[in-house]
Amino acid sequence: MPQRGEAPISVIKRLPVYLRVLDNLVKRDIEVVSSKSLSKQTGFSAEQIRKDLAFFGAFGTRGTGYNTNYLRERILRIIGLDKQTNVAIIGAGHLGTAFARYNIRENPYTNVVGLFDVSPDSVGGEIEGVPVYHLNDLQDMIKQEKVQVGVVTVPAVHAQEVVDRMVEENVKAILNFAPAKLNAPEHVTIHNVDLTIELQSLIYFAREELSADRDKEENKEE
Amino acid sequence: MPQRGEAPISVIKRLPVYLRVLDNLVKRDIEVVSSKSLSKQTGFSAEQIRKDLAFFGAFGTRGTGYNTNYLRERILRIIGLDKQTNVAIIGAGHLGTAFARYNIRENPYTNVVGLFDVSPDSVGGEIEGVPVYHLNDLQDMIKQEKVQVGVVTVPAVHAQEVVDRMVEENVKAILNFAPAKLNAPEHVTIHNVDLTIELQSLIYFAREELSADRDKEENKEE
Repeated sequence: MPQRGEAPISVIKRLPVYLRVLDNLVKRDIEVVSSKSLSKQTGFSAEQIRKDLAFFGAFGTRGTGYNTNYLRERILRIIGLDKQTNVAIIGAGHLGTAFARYNIRENPYTNVVGLFDVSPDSVGGEIEGVPVYHLNDLQDMIKQEKVQVGVVTVPAVHAQEVVDRMVEENVKAILNFAPAKLNAPEHVTIHNVDLTIELQSLIYFAREELSADRDKEENKEE
Repeated sequence: MPQRGEAPISVIKRLPVYLRVLDNLVKRDIEVVSSKSLSKQTGFSAEQIRKDLAFFGAFGTRGTGYNTNYLRERILRIIGLDKQTNVAIIGAGHLGTAFARYNIRENPYTNVVGLFDVSPDSVGGEIEGVPVYHLNDLQDMIKQEKVQVGVVTVPAVHAQEVVDRMVEENVKAILNFAPAKLNAPEHVTIHNVDLTIELQSLIYFAREELSADRDKEENKEE
């Protein structure tokens, strides 16, 4: 029986990786995949993969593996990507542009309906065929395009206002890249990605190796 | 006594947020901060904050709070940011540029020594005063600038080669944004950030609200 309730975030973050691999296999008409093969392609241990999939009730066939089509459909449903999700990206600077291009190319399950900015250099243009609107049109476009998810890549000082506008239009999920603590009603899910924090936490986890290198350097200079 | 061994990743990811707040307080000559005030500024509960800091042996003064200077220094040492860390960003496209600008502005504890690319549009230029070198110069510059951390923002197809070159020059920590499974010796720490996965996992955690919205829409159309 699939587990009810919320899966641990570590499992959830692996599901899209499985999805990407399964997309590829399905595209190549490969119908079955073993946990060992999934392990090679994802970098996760075969045991971890089996545990993750068992958590959601997807048991492979012993000795054979998993049916790729079936597993892909299951994962899409679990994540909630089986229905179209309309996404708006607020901020068409480098990060917003990178995010838009990356998502449009790599993520067939979400629909980027527009980017929003205030700069005359970007407004009126297009990124990968998606229009860049003026920020003033945000709320109208959210209604018109039925935007459900907002991605915030504006400077910290503007982030709260952007969130407020989206919440007014009933956007329920926000991915925030601005280094700011954002406020929203409880029913709105906000995830924060802070590129600086990713770098700093990497440094923590690599600190022993980095420290050993510094000691070597200092000894050389003596 | 501070805990030995590795802190849970959830705690580690909060430390840089505390750091940012403390930087700000120290800059404004504010010498003491309560867990309640830290809570307001970070969005974490006061209880969580006290637990995190206690984990590292930083106990505040009951009724008063924490000494900001002291706490900031402690956190810098814990993360490993008390010594300079030299960073190279490979890929000067939108994502690499966004990352460079963001890190140079927001992260005084790391030193971006160069970006690397192959495009004539960026090579020879500068981003926030940091030179963009040709990728062919990567290994020489790693030696010359004592680069310890690499940030990979190149397309997936090139990512492994870039990692190989960095590992050859003894880079020990890599932050990877390419949607690819990268291989490196065990002593090299690789953290992966996948912007698509962040979006997909947000959708999972917001799925009930998103689903309710879709049902409302479908009912409207009937």
